[in-house]
Amino acid sequence: MDNEVMETHAMHLLNEYLVLGCGCIAQAVLSRGVLGGIVTINVGFAMAVVTAIYVTGGVSGGHINPAVSLAMCVFGRMRWYKLPFYVGAQFLGAFVGSATIFGVYYDGLMSFAGGKLIITGENATAFIFATYPAPYLSLANAFADQVLSTMFLLMVVFAIFDSRNLGVPRGLEPVVVGLLIIALSSSLGLNCGCAMNPARDLSPRLFTALAGWGFEVFTVGNNFWWIPVVGPLLGGILGGFIYVLFIEIHHPNAHPDFEEEQSENNKPEKYELSVIM
Amino acid sequence: MDNEVMETHAMHLLNEYLVLGCGCIAQAVLSRGVLGGIVTINVGFAMAVVTAIYVTGGVSGGHINPAVSLAMCVFGRMRWYKLPFYVGAQFLGAFVGSATIFGVYYDGLMSFAGGKLIITGENATAFIFATYPAPYLSLANAFADQVLSTMFLLMVVFAIFDSRNLGVPRGLEPVVVGLLIIALSSSLGLNCGCAMNPARDLSPRLFTALAGWGFEVFTVGNNFWWIPVVGPLLGGILGGFIYVLFIEIHHPNAHPDFEEEQSENNKPEKYELSVIM
Amino acid sequence: MDNEVMETHAMHLLNEYLVLGCGCIAQAVLSRGVLGGIVTINVGFAMAVVTAIYVTGGVSGGHINPAVSLAMCVFGRMRWYKLPFYVGAQFLGAFVGSATIFGVYYDGLMSFAGGKLIITGENATAFIFATYPAPYLSLANAFADQVLSTMFLLMVVFAIFDSRNLGVPRGLEPVVVGLLIIALSSSLGLNCGCAMNPARDLSPRLFTALAGWGFEVFTVGNNFWWIPVVGPLLGGILGGFIYVLFIEIHHPNAHPDFEEEQSENNKPEKYELSVIM
Amino acid sequence: MDNEVMETHAMHLLNEYLVLGCGCIAQAVLSRGVLGGIVTINVGFAMAVVTAIYVTGGVSGGHINPAVSLAMCVFGRMRWYKLPFYVGAQFLGAFVGSATIFGVYYDGLMSFAGGKLIITGENATAFIFATYPAPYLSLANAFADQVLSTMFLLMVVFAIFDSRNLGVPRGLEPVVVGLLIIALSSSLGLNCGCAMNPARDLSPRLFTALAGWGFEVFTVGNNFWWIPVVGPLLGGILGGFIYVLFIEIHHPNAHPDFEEEQSENNKPEKYELSVIM
Repeated sequence: MDNEVMETHAMHLLNEYLVLGCGCIAQAVLSRGVLGGIVTINVGFAMAVVTAIYVTGGVSGGHINPAVSLAMCVFGRMRWYKLPFYVGAQFLGAFVGSATIFGVYYDGLMSFAGGKLIITGENATAFIFATYPAPYLSLANAFADQVLSTMFLLMVVFAIFDSRNLGVPRGLEPVVVGLLIIALSSSLGLNCGCAMNPARDLSPRLFTALAGWGFEVFTVGNNFWWIPVVGPLLGGILGGFIYVLFIEIHHPNAHPDFEEEQSENNKPEKYELSVIM
Repeated sequence: MDNEVMETHAMHLLNEYLVLGCGCIAQAVLSRGVLGGIVTINVGFAMAVVTAIYVTGGVSGGHINPAVSLAMCVFGRMRWYKLPFYVGAQFLGAFVGSATIFGVYYDGLMSFAGGKLIITGENATAFIFATYPAPYLSLANAFADQVLSTMFLLMVVFAIFDSRNLGVPRGLEPVVVGLLIIALSSSLGLNCGCAMNPARDLSPRLFTALAGWGFEVFTVGNNFWWIPVVGPLLGGILGGFIYVLFIEIHHPNAHPDFEEEQSENNKPEKYELSVIM
Repeated sequence: MDNEVMETHAMHLLNEYLVLGCGCIAQAVLSRGVLGGIVTINVGFAMAVVTAIYVTGGVSGGHINPAVSLAMCVFGRMRWYKLPFYVGAQFLGAFVGSATIFGVYYDGLMSFAGGKLIITGENATAFIFATYPAPYLSLANAFADQVLSTMFLLMVVFAIFDSRNLGVPRGLEPVVVGLLIIALSSSLGLNCGCAMNPARDLSPRLFTALAGWGFEVFTVGNNFWWIPVVGPLLGGILGGFIYVLFIEIHHPNAHPDFEEEQSENNKPEKYELSVIM
Repeated sequence: MDNEVMETHAMHLLNEYLVLGCGCIAQAVLSRGVLGGIVTINVGFAMAVVTAIYVTGGVSGGHINPAVSLAMCVFGRMRWYKLPFYVGAQFLGAFVGSATIFGVYYDGLMSFAGGKLIITGENATAFIFATYPAPYLSLANAFADQVLSTMFLLMVVFAIFDSRNLGVPRGLEPVVVGLLIIALSSSLGLNCGCAMNPARDLSPRLFTALAGWGFEVFTVGNNFWWIPVVGPLLGGILGGFIYVLFIEIHHPNAHPDFEEEQSENNKPEKYELSVIM
């Protein structure tokens, strides 16, 4: 029962995150660069995540990414029984969000390419919803890209919510997550769009397949679709592992009183929160 | 008497917000993109809102948007008798602000299109003041756009000022509102300019009608003018309803002491504040 | 003696502020837009101010603008006897800063227009240092522009450091000043470059006159040079007056204990600090 | 033993910082400006630094720049015996980071110029990794540029972590460092890329020499390679000297209790932290 409530919230959250995030891409694409570009996409998408975390962080911990939820379970920061509920809500929410952005930009999509919904080429619109690889990209490189970028994502997310590390001031964690997403999408977005999130990518892809772009959305790019699903799951665990191995287990016990104070007040809540992006 | 004072402040606030906000559009349009573009518009407009809230937040709670004020009344966060004073001040302030931006860019407007004040086309300047729909947009889609974007606005504003949610650090709420506006204007600005505010749109439109653009500002776009007036009012209530239904009523009572402490110190003040944007 | 120390600090501050600020314009101009543009100028300049305040705020209160210092004296936030020392240091510091930016970009300036230092036209470089009016601008409109923008600057600066208003968290005031400068330069920069500071404009202009651009830097634009000197002084006083009249004197005395606590701890220090930008 | 651990951390940190930082340049270059430009480079690089400090700040103090580490030793903020370990880790980490960015963009690099790895000209890619001087730049001007920019860097870093100055709120120091880097790279990036860091420049240069660009990466630009190595070391010490001379020794002793409280709680930790960027 309580899980169902959480599920609903997570769905709702992803909805806002995905509508505003993919909305930034839609605005840039449909205006052919006049009212948007890489800066508004990277900054706008990041700020969409920031505000989404503020909306649902207090209730459901900001769960919008299966790769993060999985890593949290693996490293004991979330109970395993919650995982299927969260992941289910994440995929469902992303699907609803895709439909919302499709609806609000319906007239724009229809007029963009003479009513056609195209997957590749100059008038493509499918990449408003899901990510696609650059023409030069091999599957191996694409997989490495998704593992690496999600690895960095998790390393920093673990750091942001590690009360024994530097410590982002309480209540500003979502903003620092946003700054991280700006860095990641500005540096690792060229190869294949920096999805770093199975739900954010697979659900919109399924939606576009059903909404008129056709099931080629799964086959183009040498069946690219599974890369931003499997890569982030692996990369997230890897990132958590690296953080724990290189940082967390080296925290000095030199400030026991500080540590204690922190662990009583902030830590549990913080880790709950950390299941973001 | 006290209301009159508040009215004056709100007017003054909207004045600054609108001058700096629409000023960003003016700078981009009148320089034909050389000294401004979508990034300076979206970021500059958001920062204009941020600073406007800092100026008047302490006295009149940052009231600059009838859609937000209405939603606050509907959900019991503001007394109904205040509403007409606030809304009146918002419309009056936006009119004065329009006149100010017209004055400070008078020479620029005159030289831009050979002294002509034009509503549509390449040399149009009317959209410096009020919003206009994209050529492809139907009225139904436009209405959905304004409802949806204001819905998101209110959802996040309610979250930002909900002391039982994640909680933006005290004194930084205006900055997070600014980040939200960057996300909204980057993602939902293409269809019809993301007004989300009846006063910010209708008063400048009336000003332009009187100042020389003519009353066609009301009839173009299939009489578009009422969309950013009615849509936001509806969307704001919808957003507040969704936030209360999906988030607020699910707040756990597990931390009663925390909650109590918050409710005594911050909450009333926060809700007073939350009537922003 | 103590004043001399302060003078030195203020000079040093303006130095950094002006080097990094005008450096942003130099980078955009000398790369002909490839490595800079309106976004890097507006954001970079603002962040230069932010960091300059952090450097000298603790010692000399971040005094870099005669218009702000004058308004502070007029409204009793700074002692009059300090004014000539501060203003002298501001002008001297801006001159040294101009020389620094000239030095570090000497090779770039020499190669840009075949060794010529030009004031107007396609290969102009004088506006890296001082501001110049748009071709369409009348002197009356220019004067109104400088009064208006500095008025907004002071209104918000007074608000940021008014502990009875909303209140920026202690230590983040410089960042909010930076956000304000982004808004102002994005919205009111088109007419005549948004100087808002007599020292930031007059000293670099004098430097360019001596360094090879010639004394036409004072005569172009219908002797424009005095506008960003006199306009800001008047606008600053006006902005302070509006803030006090519409906001400060209306602060409720309903929270006397809060107010008292603030006035003992933060207020004097804050007002000292507020003499910024 | 403890030093070896720190070394590992610093390496790891620089790795992330350099991958995301140089990744921003790679994305802009390899997409020929479509998916990146000076704004995403300057903002993305700065945010990469911000998140890198959050990751390792708690354990190893965010050491990623030999110029900063050296200045810290010179001014008594770090023990000299640590310096070789830190600097070694910084150079090693930057080399590993270069290899990582080379790997993740391998397909992109191969397709960009027909499989060729080019140092100068239209299809150059070497400047993704190390910095190169503008064609107009003399060695003397280049050296002055690196001294000046690193001088400003250190001045502000010393200010940010000086608890007797204005004071950035605890936990937000990395963000202000990021804002500083935005200002520096927007204003002093034109001459020679604003490296300000021997490890960030020399290690990637060595990597590119070995990876296929050839050892001309050291000889081009009149043997430019040593400028961003020696200049920052000198500039960093100069910046620290100026800060101490003009600011630190002038701190008033008027608030002894405040000062005492600070020195007990924050100062040592802060200075430990300050060895960043």
